[in-house]
Amino acid sequence: MLYESLFYDKAVNHIFSPEQTVQYLLTFEANLALAQAQEGFIPKEYAQIIAECCTVKAIDMPALVAQVGLGGNVTIPLVKQLTVLVKQKSPEAAKFVHYGATSQDVIDTAQMLQAQASIALMQERLTVIIAQLYELAYAHRHTVMIGRSFMQQARPITFGLKVVTWLDGLVRAKERLAQLSFYVQLGGAVGTLASMPDKGQAIAQSLASLLGLSYHLVVWHTQRDLLAQIATTVGLLSGSLGKIAKDISLLMQTEIAEVFEPSAQGKGGSSTMPHKRNPVSCIAILANAQRVPALVSTLLQAQLQDHERATGAWHTEWETLAQILQLCAGSLAQTQVMTQNLEVNTSQMLRNIEATQGLIFAENVSLALAEQLGKAEAHERVEQWCKLAQAEGVHLKTVVARQQLLTPEQLEQLFNPVNALGFAVTMVESYCNKSQTAS
Amino acid sequence: MLYESLFYDKAVNHIFSPEQTVQYLLTFEANLALAQAQEGFIPKEYAQIIAECCTVKAIDMPALVAQVGLGGNVTIPLVKQLTVLVKQKSPEAAKFVHYGATSQDVIDTAQMLQAQASIALMQERLTVIIAQLYELAYAHRHTVMIGRSFMQQARPITFGLKVVTWLDGLVRAKERLAQLSFYVQLGGAVGTLASMPDKGQAIAQSLASLLGLSYHLVVWHTQRDLLAQIATTVGLLSGSLGKIAKDISLLMQTEIAEVFEPSAQGKGGSSTMPHKRNPVSCIAILANAQRVPALVSTLLQAQLQDHERATGAWHTEWETLAQILQLCAGSLAQTQVMTQNLEVNTSQMLRNIEATQGLIFAENVSLALAEQLGKAEAHERVEQWCKLAQAEGVHLKTVVARQQLLTPEQLEQLFNPVNALGFAVTMVESYCNKSQTAS
Amino acid sequence: MLYESLFYDKAVNHIFSPEQTVQYLLTFEANLALAQAQEGFIPKEYAQIIAECCTVKAIDMPALVAQVGLGGNVTIPLVKQLTVLVKQKSPEAAKFVHYGATSQDVIDTAQMLQAQASIALMQERLTVIIAQLYELAYAHRHTVMIGRSFMQQARPITFGLKVVTWLDGLVRAKERLAQLSFYVQLGGAVGTLASMPDKGQAIAQSLASLLGLSYHLVVWHTQRDLLAQIATTVGLLSGSLGKIAKDISLLMQTEIAEVFEPSAQGKGGSSTMPHKRNPVSCIAILANAQRVPALVSTLLQAQLQDHERATGAWHTEWETLAQILQLCAGSLAQTQVMTQNLEVNTSQMLRNIEATQGLIFAENVSLALAEQLGKAEAHERVEQWCKLAQAEGVHLKTVVARQQLLTPEQLEQLFNPVNALGFAVTMVESYCNKSQTAS
Amino acid sequence: MLYESLFYDKAVNHIFSPEQTVQYLLTFEANLALAQAQEGFIPKEYAQIIAECCTVKAIDMPALVAQVGLGGNVTIPLVKQLTVLVKQKSPEAAKFVHYGATSQDVIDTAQMLQAQASIALMQERLTVIIAQLYELAYAHRHTVMIGRSFMQQARPITFGLKVVTWLDGLVRAKERLAQLSFYVQLGGAVGTLASMPDKGQAIAQSLASLLGLSYHLVVWHTQRDLLAQIATTVGLLSGSLGKIAKDISLLMQTEIAEVFEPSAQGKGGSSTMPHKRNPVSCIAILANAQRVPALVSTLLQAQLQDHERATGAWHTEWETLAQILQLCAGSLAQTQVMTQNLEVNTSQMLRNIEATQGLIFAENVSLALAEQLGKAEAHERVEQWCKLAQAEGVHLKTVVARQQLLTPEQLEQLFNPVNALGFAVTMVESYCNKSQTAS
Repeated sequence: MLYESLFYDKAVNHIFSPEQTVQYLLTFEANLALAQAQEGFIPKEYAQIIAECCTVKAIDMPALVAQVGLGGNVTIPLVKQLTVLVKQKSPEAAKFVHYGATSQDVIDTAQMLQAQASIALMQERLTVIIAQLYELAYAHRHTVMIGRSFMQQARPITFGLKVVTWLDGLVRAKERLAQLSFYVQLGGAVGTLASMPDKGQAIAQSLASLLGLSYHLVVWHTQRDLLAQIATTVGLLSGSLGKIAKDISLLMQTEIAEVFEPSAQGKGGSSTMPHKRNPVSCIAILANAQRVPALVSTLLQAQLQDHERATGAWHTEWETLAQILQLCAGSLAQTQVMTQNLEVNTSQMLRNIEATQGLIFAENVSLALAEQLGKAEAHERVEQWCKLAQAEGVHLKTVVARQQLLTPEQLEQLFNPVNALGFAVTMVESYCNKSQTAS
Repeated sequence: MLYESLFYDKAVNHIFSPEQTVQYLLTFEANLALAQAQEGFIPKEYAQIIAECCTVKAIDMPALVAQVGLGGNVTIPLVKQLTVLVKQKSPEAAKFVHYGATSQDVIDTAQMLQAQASIALMQERLTVIIAQLYELAYAHRHTVMIGRSFMQQARPITFGLKVVTWLDGLVRAKERLAQLSFYVQLGGAVGTLASMPDKGQAIAQSLASLLGLSYHLVVWHTQRDLLAQIATTVGLLSGSLGKIAKDISLLMQTEIAEVFEPSAQGKGGSSTMPHKRNPVSCIAILANAQRVPALVSTLLQAQLQDHERATGAWHTEWETLAQILQLCAGSLAQTQVMTQNLEVNTSQMLRNIEATQGLIFAENVSLALAEQLGKAEAHERVEQWCKLAQAEGVHLKTVVARQQLLTPEQLEQLFNPVNALGFAVTMVESYCNKSQTAS
Repeated sequence: MLYESLFYDKAVNHIFSPEQTVQYLLTFEANLALAQAQEGFIPKEYAQIIAECCTVKAIDMPALVAQVGLGGNVTIPLVKQLTVLVKQKSPEAAKFVHYGATSQDVIDTAQMLQAQASIALMQERLTVIIAQLYELAYAHRHTVMIGRSFMQQARPITFGLKVVTWLDGLVRAKERLAQLSFYVQLGGAVGTLASMPDKGQAIAQSLASLLGLSYHLVVWHTQRDLLAQIATTVGLLSGSLGKIAKDISLLMQTEIAEVFEPSAQGKGGSSTMPHKRNPVSCIAILANAQRVPALVSTLLQAQLQDHERATGAWHTEWETLAQILQLCAGSLAQTQVMTQNLEVNTSQMLRNIEATQGLIFAENVSLALAEQLGKAEAHERVEQWCKLAQAEGVHLKTVVARQQLLTPEQLEQLFNPVNALGFAVTMVESYCNKSQTAS
Repeated sequence: MLYESLFYDKAVNHIFSPEQTVQYLLTFEANLALAQAQEGFIPKEYAQIIAECCTVKAIDMPALVAQVGLGGNVTIPLVKQLTVLVKQKSPEAAKFVHYGATSQDVIDTAQMLQAQASIALMQERLTVIIAQLYELAYAHRHTVMIGRSFMQQARPITFGLKVVTWLDGLVRAKERLAQLSFYVQLGGAVGTLASMPDKGQAIAQSLASLLGLSYHLVVWHTQRDLLAQIATTVGLLSGSLGKIAKDISLLMQTEIAEVFEPSAQGKGGSSTMPHKRNPVSCIAILANAQRVPALVSTLLQAQLQDHERATGAWHTEWETLAQILQLCAGSLAQTQVMTQNLEVNTSQMLRNIEATQGLIFAENVSLALAEQLGKAEAHERVEQWCKLAQAEGVHLKTVVARQQLLTPEQLEQLFNPVNALGFAVTMVESYCNKSQTAS
């Protein structure tokens, strides 16, 4: 893929390469035979032979790709090739290839294995990112910056608190991913395991166990919430990563310049503007986060499956689930790079907090006067003073001072951002301590 | 709403009516004052006065609606009206209206209360539907019907197994809904609770407790996975309901006629075709299930929120989350009606199973001959016999009999659908028993 | 609707109110009878009586709403009520109510009338907005501001050019809307007009003519591109409005402060931050623009309709198309207000252009040296000088001057933004003149 | 791609392969140089050297792919490689590589070229499909089949009319595609062409002309309706193809069996059910049609672009637009195969029309009695007779005959499907003749 180094994670892309996908399908076939042997359903030596043949290296990939269109899925031509391979070693064993399984059993199980493997890799990155952000949050628990609402300067926060907000979504995402189960699929043509008399359920359980997947009493051939839930769970993570990228890209604006993606040799340069520092990682994460939601909706839509094997809705899932996982893995890769050496310009943060000449402390003043004047009255008066300060181009403190409703000491307190932080520092400390206790 | 009786649930729609929405907002304001009094932050008598004024009946709704556009949200004009009301009783108390809170605190909390109330109603319906389906599945655990793959007749299942597949998604959906938490939002302008010195966190906890919501250490003003997760969870349910409606609408086809929505006086009639029996409930559920996924994607997309208050993305959520809940509640209402008296035509099921003149048992024959001939060889021969049977217009059993590879007794066994059910009956029984033990 | 004054346009909302929707349905029934009379298919006096009864005032709306769920659409109970009303005047005339039509004929045609009426109102606003923007673009054709790429300062443009970019999308959107056709639907149960022997096609043409709609030879009951195209066309407009709101909301940032939504009494104020100037109109437009795409996808998805009347996909469209039109109309209303008195702070634009201390002119320098040094060499050197300027905190001009590769006059030219505008002014002038010629 | 032969069209996939994508980018660079030479902006011999180097064969693809992530797009490392290549031939010429252009100019133009080439191939297929369907419609203009509403048998149509409904969407889709314009992008860093003094606009026009693209006065770097419109237009086509596949997949149901995808050696077979005839082409088309709408929504969402170069939204488009084109091209490929030799079982159509024992003619009876009894009365009586016929298991004709309200001749007429076709035949003939005249 042309954009692999931008939008994707190489290791997760590998899991979904045509070759690896076929390998996962073959892994199902190998373990099906082994499970069937384990349960005494087919002879062990045949199972062994089948299992040995189940390697993608032996598969003629171009021929396979060309034949997918005929049968409507990859299992049919793959089983044909596999049967030929096994037959060369043992015509008897060849009779037991893909025995009693249906195409969807193979494809669904392979997809679950791929999802499981992808999410394991994603969890590793998430663990690193979360650790980095905990450190960052704690380090900046006292770093004062302006909080912004509707992209307008509002009131002070600490950068640590902003990072905790980022963290919060990722911590929950990690828990949600950890709660996902990945299921084996084995039901045969219509989910009854009719072709494995007496042994079907035991084989399914053995197969699950061999593959490291969960077993479920009934097939989920056309009840797809199990699969769609993987998508929604990853989708929520992708959104929380996007929130971080949104913030950082805004903070990197030339006129704000408070936080920057780490610079790297050749990274983020512009072909025509040598001075620029483009938010390249943010761009990739944002692009992915804008693509994933629609893909998730496709999988939710694909839950409308007919009868015992769906006419199209199942096929809708194949590339879509893969894309969701691949894109979110790419976003994690970019986030990991970004949070590892995030540059924080604390002095610029302090400069920006003075940009409104004290207007951001208007609510402080308003609340300080609320007892004297009532909340509404105080609110209105302060609104007027703000307009006055703007019109005159002077600091709000100057205008408020003229009113002589507050002492100089009170004024000093009201306009010091450190006094306007409320619980910001406490929150960060509690949040980080809680985590330390937890881990 | 014109389509309330078709797509919606009246009780859930009520929760999201303009009046009720305002009442939920006022419930926040009332309980904020009470919580602040409880924590000794404001005088109890003022809190009491504020709380008494917090009733939508006192609100001038048309004026409110007209002013929403000015401030960009409903809190601003609502707090103005409320303050006037409180001032009439006590100018002192009026100073403490909405004290220290921000518009988003009010709106987010109200939305959580609405979601919680909606989902409670949805869970009630889900409980009834699940009980009905357990009964239906068990009652039909032996009812033979054809399983269909890609809408082609495949091999026999029991109707009970199909119902268990429906159940399976709903049981999981119910668990997922039960695991959702609904959080209070209280952070003030930028999430620091700066306007409630010393008492902010205690007030937030009291408020959560008074409202029956969960408390979280940091605000989620712009980290929206908590809200989006409600949407994805409901979305998964909507999809599983859609799967049921998909199946029933297909089974109601004139040419299949195996299962029918219960008929009711005037229901499902056509204005021009008096004989028709339209799948009205299915239609509504399918329509809703086709609308919900895109709405869910909007909420995932809306996770990309800027800084401490989002410029548009937050506003995107308001009507969208409401619609998701309302539509899914409507689907549940329709499903409940539908599953209560679902008509099952078991004799038609048996007739349909003979539609292919035995071709659906081809795999049985194929597997029965696999040991003699090898799997591939058996598969190919049976394929030819099938073509022969089709060409001659005779039953496959007749063609197979000619080959003299199987005894008449074997043939009888192979073509009896009851022998082709695999684990269908067992699965249904285990599934239903497991549930009995669980409950 | 609670958010009517924020997200919507009152006039377009009115078109889709339950009462007006029913009136549009009745307008179909009235004109169907009149068309049938016109073609000699039913007696004129009966048609007249039917037409007179077709007024929503005579309809029992609550009863109607309650019955929609039974038949699965609003036509069935509406025709029942209408028939009773007509019967009171003439039992003979009552026989010809809804004669030969099917429910979908009524609903589809009403929807087309509603779409047509909505779009007519939208076109009016679009005309005003476009005129305002032409004026704005021309007035600011020389107003220098910084162009931004990836939210980083890049090189100078004029504000007029930015406005032309906004205009460009709207001008095309207007043309696209003007090219839409709105079709009558009349086919009877399965599109064959079988219940209006000999006269069906003539009646359909008369009906189209009476209603001011287009006639098409075959029904579009289940071929929905005609309807979906309305959605995609409106969707493209919504996106172009969102682009404007995106830019303005970014330009309104406290730290940028170049362009502002017009202020109005009470507009955009914050309940807790008296100094703030929230981009309220932008917020509404952005929220709508983030909701519309998913709704459009629902209508594209709904094209997958079965046979001659769709089982759910048709019903998916009803509220969805209405929402798309209503939301986009609301965005237009907000845009009109916003562009009418947009505040442009030209001096702040000039201040911001100096924010990088000349770095934005690096490419000028680079190109000026390209002939001497080759493009790559020049690019690399300038990159180094930029780093030097940043490190020393001095203006790039100072650093470049040291190199003595360029004369002071050249330097002056290179760092004057007016010399870096390229074709910006020409483009705006050509664009605006072209439009004057066109109109 | 693993599923290339199922979901895709090889030729269109080729257009979007990494190599071809890079070739399109290089084609831009080659023609930019040639256009600049043509306008006297750079020496012709240098342009010639640059153009000669612009071949993907000379590019180190793995290195390129690895570097995309650094700069955030493919242009930056590609221009570096190209510059090295040109420098080897002429250091002087190397100074003019990518002269005055910005990364987005290259990528947008290449994308437009790819879209144009893809749509040209799609139009070819569409032309063939439309011709096939015209022939099919005309050939079956008299072929009686049942029309179905909500998947219930309704009243008779002809198969020709159904095909015309299919055609109708495709004919309009073809026109819409033909009206699309594909634009060159050339604006430099911020759209002002500042790096090509005096000659910029002339160069842009020459470049457009050399590439066979349209020229537009202002850049569309961040006004993306032009690109999104390609997506919506293709999306509408995808939906209309999906409608055909929906119908055919339903008609292929074992219990209906009226229309079949052409069979081919090995096509549509099941790995476990040798008798099955899976709707493989329909499945692929339906799967694609369920994926495209969400992808279109992503492009509409991506219209919300910031300033002069978008931070993420632009990048969202790259793979998404490609996927939409590739999927729709695949659907066309499958549709072409399917419609070429569609099997129509006309005798089964006649059998199915008798499935309800005359109930589908109930409206005929109802209308025939409307004059005697009034519409409502007739409707109600016929409703009762239908129930009677169903209860007794006899033909509706028998029940109606008992009432002695109609003569035997009338009855014969009423229950003959050929008499119930209304304008079906006329419509098909007019539709097909109109097309002949047009072509």
